[in-house]
Amino acid sequence: MERLFSKQKYIDRRKTLISKISGGIILLPGNQRSPVNYKSNVYRFRQDSNFLYFFGLDSEGLAGVIDVDSGEEIVFGPVFTIDDLIWTGPLEKIEDRAEKVAVTKTMPDNSLKDYLQKALMRNRKIHYLPPYRGEKTILLSELLDKTVTDIENGFSPDLIHAVCSLRIIKDDDEVKEIETTLDNVTRQQHIMAMNNCRPGIKESLIAGMVEGFGLQQDCMLAFPVICSVHGEILHNESHENTLKNGQLMILDMGNESPMHYATDITRTTPVSGKFTQVQAEIYNLVLAMMDSSLRLMKPGISYAYIHQKASETLAEGLIDIGLMKGDPEEVVASGAHALFFPHGLGHLMGLDVHDMEDLGEDNIGYDDEHKRSTQFGTAFLRFGRKLEKGIILTVEPGIYFIPTLIDLWKSEKKYESFINYNALHNYMNFGGIRVEDDVLITSTGNRILGKPIPKTIVEVEETYKF
Amino acid sequence: MERLFSKQKYIDRRKTLISKISGGIILLPGNQRSPVNYKSNVYRFRQDSNFLYFFGLDSEGLAGVIDVDSGEEIVFGPVFTIDDLIWTGPLEKIEDRAEKVAVTKTMPDNSLKDYLQKALMRNRKIHYLPPYRGEKTILLSELLDKTVTDIENGFSPDLIHAVCSLRIIKDDDEVKEIETTLDNVTRQQHIMAMNNCRPGIKESLIAGMVEGFGLQQDCMLAFPVICSVHGEILHNESHENTLKNGQLMILDMGNESPMHYATDITRTTPVSGKFTQVQAEIYNLVLAMMDSSLRLMKPGISYAYIHQKASETLAEGLIDIGLMKGDPEEVVASGAHALFFPHGLGHLMGLDVHDMEDLGEDNIGYDDEHKRSTQFGTAFLRFGRKLEKGIILTVEPGIYFIPTLIDLWKSEKKYESFINYNALHNYMNFGGIRVEDDVLITSTGNRILGKPIPKTIVEVEETYKF
Repeated sequence: MERLFSKQKYIDRRKTLISKISGGIILLPGNQRSPVNYKSNVYRFRQDSNFLYFFGLDSEGLAGVIDVDSGEEIVFGPVFTIDDLIWTGPLEKIEDRAEKVAVTKTMPDNSLKDYLQKALMRNRKIHYLPPYRGEKTILLSELLDKTVTDIENGFSPDLIHAVCSLRIIKDDDEVKEIETTLDNVTRQQHIMAMNNCRPGIKESLIAGMVEGFGLQQDCMLAFPVICSVHGEILHNESHENTLKNGQLMILDMGNESPMHYATDITRTTPVSGKFTQVQAEIYNLVLAMMDSSLRLMKPGISYAYIHQKASETLAEGLIDIGLMKGDPEEVVASGAHALFFPHGLGHLMGLDVHDMEDLGEDNIGYDDEHKRSTQFGTAFLRFGRKLEKGIILTVEPGIYFIPTLIDLWKSEKKYESFINYNALHNYMNFGGIRVEDDVLITSTGNRILGKPIPKTIVEVEETYKF
Repeated sequence: MERLFSKQKYIDRRKTLISKISGGIILLPGNQRSPVNYKSNVYRFRQDSNFLYFFGLDSEGLAGVIDVDSGEEIVFGPVFTIDDLIWTGPLEKIEDRAEKVAVTKTMPDNSLKDYLQKALMRNRKIHYLPPYRGEKTILLSELLDKTVTDIENGFSPDLIHAVCSLRIIKDDDEVKEIETTLDNVTRQQHIMAMNNCRPGIKESLIAGMVEGFGLQQDCMLAFPVICSVHGEILHNESHENTLKNGQLMILDMGNESPMHYATDITRTTPVSGKFTQVQAEIYNLVLAMMDSSLRLMKPGISYAYIHQKASETLAEGLIDIGLMKGDPEEVVASGAHALFFPHGLGHLMGLDVHDMEDLGEDNIGYDDEHKRSTQFGTAFLRFGRKLEKGIILTVEPGIYFIPTLIDLWKSEKKYESFINYNALHNYMNFGGIRVEDDVLITSTGNRILGKPIPKTIVEVEETYKF
């Protein structure tokens, strides 16, 4: 069924977790099925990442419990009936599966409430993480006999910080898991998209083709495919447009590895196969933002600083082109550049594509030393803390021309001393460009994960086939 | 954005609904997004079918309200911010969208609680349907200020029966919607699967190929693809096996039309391209079960009776082959045939692949005249009532050899007077066969929907390409 790391890794992870919590019981419920249009018609199952990290088992209805004081570890799981046998086939016993992640005690799922209630009666603290699915919130409310509101507010900040301190640093096995999927699936999908990009087809043809290629290898998406000739709409999930000569197709997609680690890559391809001069100028500026970032990323430097430096590279380039004016550092300090780059430079990546976002972006991405900016654009940076060896981040600079935002700011005369609104006239149909790689922080610097995927103008144009 | 029927259809549907409810307020909340591994990473959006049926609009966070006494109809929807503009693009105003389904009054979603609380203070009854997603249950609990348990138990049986009486009968537009998707997508996918079926590949290759083909046309699955050489595992959702000569590949899949009506077709292909004599014998018996069903299906006949007659055809055939013995009617009355056919002959199909299963299978599929059987196998029949013109059902007979079930019954000496356990020895690796079509009940009989999809042994073997 599931693919697992070595037993020792799960033993070590749980041992370290215990060492970081002062006492009580850690409750890590796995995920249930997510209904589509009635209870038994469900979306593809996705296990909870925190449960996966500490208990590895990849099926619904499980819960992992760790008694911090006694060290006892239990997996609670469903007991199967004859009907299960007919509908879902012979299933491995929970005790045999738990043994693979070095948990020797298992109990039926219907005894979990009793176990927890007894612990509560002895005034033991129960640590759980913030639930992000309605089914999980309701389950916790039943198990702990609390209202939904109490459950939503009652998660354990201690557990959040302990889990984050482990999950944020990736070991070699985790890096390998991500790189294998990058090379075997995600890289192929982006090359396939460049091969098949051409005028006259719909975005859905490319989006479906790349998702289908992943599915043929039983590899699910890490997030909904963004495939759009309107790249200026950042989370554009519709695939209705027909590709036209002169447009740019942004493809932002990633997969889940067999153990559910994410990949996340973006490339931009000209629909005609050739970048126009205007497009090439902006495209190379996006690559310059990426290069300036990669030159600086290493342990000890904050990602907020890297974001700032990439923004200054952007401002410098746009001043050269004539779309902005003034001093690049002043531009970025003012926030004017966010008209063209209204999102963060990147985010943590791991078992989630935005790693640990369920634990709260500010808990994960910021700390006492690094507070989230309140400035439009930079406020969307999901991770601002110091880089450490073993962190994996996306680096995804982009430049967008968002007509409604340009019109709005222009009408408000916003940042008139930095933005040449008149020069923007010719860019209203430009769309957007984004290029994204997945980057590991090493002891001395960083490394782009996976084999190279066509990225320079020459490489993209050569991969285009039509 | 969404594809809609004529305004008049939504007017008529709501008018009929009002006429069937004696008073109070009907609350039909649409669906929210379903989180995968954190709140903002979501599965592909699927609108609630009941909301779609009466209000048509296909995006998240909406709610339809009908005041049965005053006749007032309101769509509650989100108010957009500048951030929405950047992340999801320019969005059509809710008042303009509501107008397309002939609703003239709209209100912001954050005023829905106030509206409902005022109604409750005036002792108005609020009718809602059973929620099937955790997020919806929590939303209703907040809106109506009730506990989760009260919400789960407080749905309106009157509304269930009123909605069912409308949705169960499909008009020509709905039939056309389903047939177009059958012809353009589902039929092509089954032919593609037969073309590509061959030894040495994994089930996931076929499953991913057909799902990808649908996605290329922006057409989502109606339910998770079943693609398996272990057809005897009825809801086998894993695609891990490698296809081997001598095995049978069951492909059970369907799509959602642009307006979210389902299709649901099953075919069985021999991996080698040729049915063995043993396989052909069983395959033709499955087709005989389908034929005997289609000969009988017409208004006034109960589907429980059709299921019984198909089971008798099965028993007759298995007696001829030597796997069963005795009188076919007695076999079926005893329930012994369910060893080979442990599921129902079919189910309603419409906006849901198991139409209206969220409203409760017994509410929809059974009535005072037709009670659900408690016998193993037949108990799984989802619809037992009398057929009416305009009902769409799947007809999906199957024959399976489930080793663990055979061993269990044999050890219990179950139905020894009807089952030749010794003769089953050679069938333990057989797997299973299922063939399924979508059938409309007409005024005089029935009609298989869509263009023919290869079904006879000759047709399937001719479609195989390897």
